[in-house]
Amino acid sequence: MKLALIFGGHSFEHEISIVSAIALKDVLKHLDLEFIFISNDRKMFVIPSKNMKSNFFSSGAYKKSEEVFLNYDGFRIKSIFSKKTLDITCVLNLIHGGDGEDGLISSLLEFYKQDFIGPRVDACVLSFSKLLTKAYAKLVGVDTLSFKYFSKDSKPKKLDYPCILKPLRLGSSIGLSVLKNAKDLDYSVDVAREFDDEFIIEPFINNVKEYNLAGTFIENEFIFSIIEEPQKSGILDFEKKYLDFSRTEKTSKALIPLKLEKDLKDAFKKIYGTIFRGALIRCDFFVLENKVYLNEINPIPGSMSNYLFDDFADIISKLAKSLPRKKPINIDYAYVNKIQSAKGKSWQ
Amino acid sequence: MKLALIFGGHSFEHEISIVSAIALKDVLKHLDLEFIFISNDRKMFVIPSKNMKSNFFSSGAYKKSEEVFLNYDGFRIKSIFSKKTLDITCVLNLIHGGDGEDGLISSLLEFYKQDFIGPRVDACVLSFSKLLTKAYAKLVGVDTLSFKYFSKDSKPKKLDYPCILKPLRLGSSIGLSVLKNAKDLDYSVDVAREFDDEFIIEPFINNVKEYNLAGTFIENEFIFSIIEEPQKSGILDFEKKYLDFSRTEKTSKALIPLKLEKDLKDAFKKIYGTIFRGALIRCDFFVLENKVYLNEINPIPGSMSNYLFDDFADIISKLAKSLPRKKPINIDYAYVNKIQSAKGKSWQ
Repeated sequence: MKLALIFGGHSFEHEISIVSAIALKDVLKHLDLEFIFISNDRKMFVIPSKNMKSNFFSSGAYKKSEEVFLNYDGFRIKSIFSKKTLDITCVLNLIHGGDGEDGLISSLLEFYKQDFIGPRVDACVLSFSKLLTKAYAKLVGVDTLSFKYFSKDSKPKKLDYPCILKPLRLGSSIGLSVLKNAKDLDYSVDVAREFDDEFIIEPFINNVKEYNLAGTFIENEFIFSIIEEPQKSGILDFEKKYLDFSRTEKTSKALIPLKLEKDLKDAFKKIYGTIFRGALIRCDFFVLENKVYLNEINPIPGSMSNYLFDDFADIISKLAKSLPRKKPINIDYAYVNKIQSAKGKSWQ
Repeated sequence: MKLALIFGGHSFEHEISIVSAIALKDVLKHLDLEFIFISNDRKMFVIPSKNMKSNFFSSGAYKKSEEVFLNYDGFRIKSIFSKKTLDITCVLNLIHGGDGEDGLISSLLEFYKQDFIGPRVDACVLSFSKLLTKAYAKLVGVDTLSFKYFSKDSKPKKLDYPCILKPLRLGSSIGLSVLKNAKDLDYSVDVAREFDDEFIIEPFINNVKEYNLAGTFIENEFIFSIIEEPQKSGILDFEKKYLDFSRTEKTSKALIPLKLEKDLKDAFKKIYGTIFRGALIRCDFFVLENKVYLNEINPIPGSMSNYLFDDFADIISKLAKSLPRKKPINIDYAYVNKIQSAKGKSWQ
């Protein structure tokens, strides 16, 4: 099996994706890997393994790599003399944020019938917008914190402080602010709107318990990671989270009662449902008075949360062989023939 | 402006899309048009206007047309490596059902920065699944009928009859059945599951009032069609609806009180929101005891509901110049450079 890590993309999280891919190169070193980089202008390049270093991208040196074009026969390599394609069994979508988590790359891969590990287009859309995530969680019976939504033209007036302001569609804490009082409001709104016209505001709960759980679904059963209690540094910040994307060291299991472990896993199963099949996701939960609340769904978590699993490479290999399939569609033109008779000569 | 109608696709509604495109060829004849056909195996062909007849597709003659490849510089002719491209200003997405309304084509067009009229990826996902449509309608404050959802492994037991069984993701009444009593159940479930493992069941309300309203959003204002009361033939059936896709004759306005007209338009505005910007959609409503319920969102209605508008070609021309834009993303590699220092030599 040849696995292609696809990373980069036209995304505010472009650089984070590069970091994830470099981290996974090491974690998955026993698999047969290819690396496909998508530049900010959406060109695709095959990156030789030896060049998988961060300054190869930041310096622009990647532009001299071989360009590929995704089409119905796979990733075609630019060559005048042949129809050479990369011989890829499965793609692992590692593009965080735009392109990767908004449904675009998933759609491209699906359209061109390229097997891939990652969220399908519907899973992307539901987890990309915090508003839709909340609506989806409600639909499947998982609680989320109360919130207020603000569109392009609306502005918060009376708020309860402290609260947290999050751009509607960004991940990795980009554009997010914790507001201590009304003085913080204008600046926070400006920061969020650099990235997204719309945002939500949630209560900020001091010392709330947080638990992260990753998992996937392989051959009719759920495979869970350990449950981690993430370290908090008071206010979540981008750089702290950013370092998280390069994590490869194992972490330790949160010490929690069995009942809570079960509740977290049950909530994960409800969220994952059938919509997230084919993906390995991480759900971040809050726990308040023993009740579980979904904070966010990471359909492509930083470095795929590899550090939460015992044998991550084995899970990826198995998942690649257990991807969801769609019903076949046969087209026999029976209806077009019928309408030809109904509409007469001008249609034929 | 050169407008390309894109149609066909790997979809149960492939043939319906051909019919829509042929109907619109006539309606939009004063515009500069191209026709791009997507075959069931997802090859793309440019179809000369004179060949836009149904048997050109049903006979397979289209396979001799010129092939095009969508890439970051547009639709390339013949070879993905050739420099010749179709000079298209805007695409009109006319693919009903899979590929067109599930987000795949929208994603391809967006990824390759091709301007297009049609639902964006998030709008597609929300309107493609009847379950998500209901959750979305609730989120924006529009009522829908009560329903029961059935997954792959669940089967209805006790139901109230008559009721209507709808595959979760199909349009054009495909796979839909009206059940008069429990005897109809097994067969209806089998029919639906030919197309989709999941389905919903809603009450079937005899003589419910139905109203269809199409519209779009151009330069900060809503443009509405007339409100139509669709003709009913007792049970909705695919062939009846199918003929609808070839409609180009104008229809007459439903005679309804001003208050109801306002309520229908208000519900449309809530559904359209910001998510459907760039698309011309039709919302089909039920009215029960003067209360408006959303039945379904057609993000790419049959023949674009052209027959509901006074000057459809003019609306399409204006919409092509009023498409939503995304915020620009600049990547300066500042974070990658930071992590290079943090992680040390091995990353550089």
